[in-house]
Amino acid sequence: MSQNIYDNEEFFEGYSRLARSVEGLDGALEWPALHALLPDLRGLKVVDLGCGFGWFCRWVRQNGAVHVLGIDVSERMLARSRANTQDGAIVYTRADLEHLELSGKSFDVAYSSLALHYVEDLNGCLLEVYRSLVPGGSLIFSVEHPMFTAPADPSWVVDAAGRKTWPIDGYLDEGPRSTDWLAKGVVKHHRTLATYINTLLRLGFAISHVEEWGPTEAQIASRPNLADERQRPPFLLVAARR
Amino acid sequence: MSQNIYDNEEFFEGYSRLARSVEGLDGALEWPALHALLPDLRGLKVVDLGCGFGWFCRWVRQNGAVHVLGIDVSERMLARSRANTQDGAIVYTRADLEHLELSGKSFDVAYSSLALHYVEDLNGCLLEVYRSLVPGGSLIFSVEHPMFTAPADPSWVVDAAGRKTWPIDGYLDEGPRSTDWLAKGVVKHHRTLATYINTLLRLGFAISHVEEWGPTEAQIASRPNLADERQRPPFLLVAARR
Repeated sequence: MSQNIYDNEEFFEGYSRLARSVEGLDGALEWPALHALLPDLRGLKVVDLGCGFGWFCRWVRQNGAVHVLGIDVSERMLARSRANTQDGAIVYTRADLEHLELSGKSFDVAYSSLALHYVEDLNGCLLEVYRSLVPGGSLIFSVEHPMFTAPADPSWVVDAAGRKTWPIDGYLDEGPRSTDWLAKGVVKHHRTLATYINTLLRLGFAISHVEEWGPTEAQIASRPNLADERQRPPFLLVAARR
Repeated sequence: MSQNIYDNEEFFEGYSRLARSVEGLDGALEWPALHALLPDLRGLKVVDLGCGFGWFCRWVRQNGAVHVLGIDVSERMLARSRANTQDGAIVYTRADLEHLELSGKSFDVAYSSLALHYVEDLNGCLLEVYRSLVPGGSLIFSVEHPMFTAPADPSWVVDAAGRKTWPIDGYLDEGPRSTDWLAKGVVKHHRTLATYINTLLRLGFAISHVEEWGPTEAQIASRPNLADERQRPPFLLVAARR
């Protein structure tokens, strides 16, 4: 089983205070870009891998999906999701994405927001997703960008001349990275951008779109400290089709 | 017209002394990885965009291609290619990849080694390539990796603790970068990895493989100073199909 950091009390409390937890989808700066990659959801069956507080599951139902399965490894997350949602067409299930089982299930859309970088066996997870998708079905996901997960010390460097840079090392050396974010010792699995794409291709997916997400000019205008995120994209967004 | 740095005397002299110029394909560390992306060439028609000294054009003929078009913007390069090759099935033509015209031509394979990062209008260039490929035809190319082309100051940084990192900035800000490599003021066009992929997808290509190339363990064993290149891949290799 992969590390279930979300049931760590300190992490959960911190996570619960993030804008994306309090405000839902509109609190996530990359949401408009992810949204643009989704198909028309009317009449579709959707699975959300790492559903968190259930914000996406609810939104999907409001936009016409007929069945939604929300999966998360965290009991606390699922409890919050269930409390937030009164909708018989949304089912929340506890499962570890590291050992995902979707046998017999059939979805039109698989979605995952900022969860797959916690998964060590990406191929095994995406194989199960591939099998559960109908032909022509879509996979849309975001992860922390590989430039973000690679460094031994992932923090900005300011040199004597005031130049701010992101210090890349270890990019081609894939594997776990332990970082302190909301709690100590959060384990993420670094892999290259090419590995994300080639894993999908080998499984039989066709790539539809790749986005190295950074804030828009409008977002920077309203929150100037976001400008750094254009120096090095924080998120990778991928759309693929079975 | 794009900058034709190869006809700059200082640049040409420096370029002529590189291992890949003197030794040909085997002098290029990434060649085995590019080679692995090529189809069986027997009976095929091939175009090489930025053919340099003609090493690849010759190799392609030795491996069964029936017609090869080598394109380069540099008269000096083409003169060297022609002198190196006595083969009626290889045609060398001067053209600027910025304004490529392949109308009426039909190729099974389009290849380009470390040339497309000099092209400002990538979409226009690849549109022309797309049109010239037969259905099912392959495009295989290498470019300097976007992590390599992004920084304002593309050189390793060593901090007080001896940690060596590659200082990323400006990654999402695409456009020209002027660097001093073999000569002063060599202009490359930085674009993100996502832009390379999405440009291909929009034109109708399917992505077959993406590689963020770094040296193998065997290459590092024989040349230990190559180890840094695994911290940040120097090249991006892409295979796509029309």
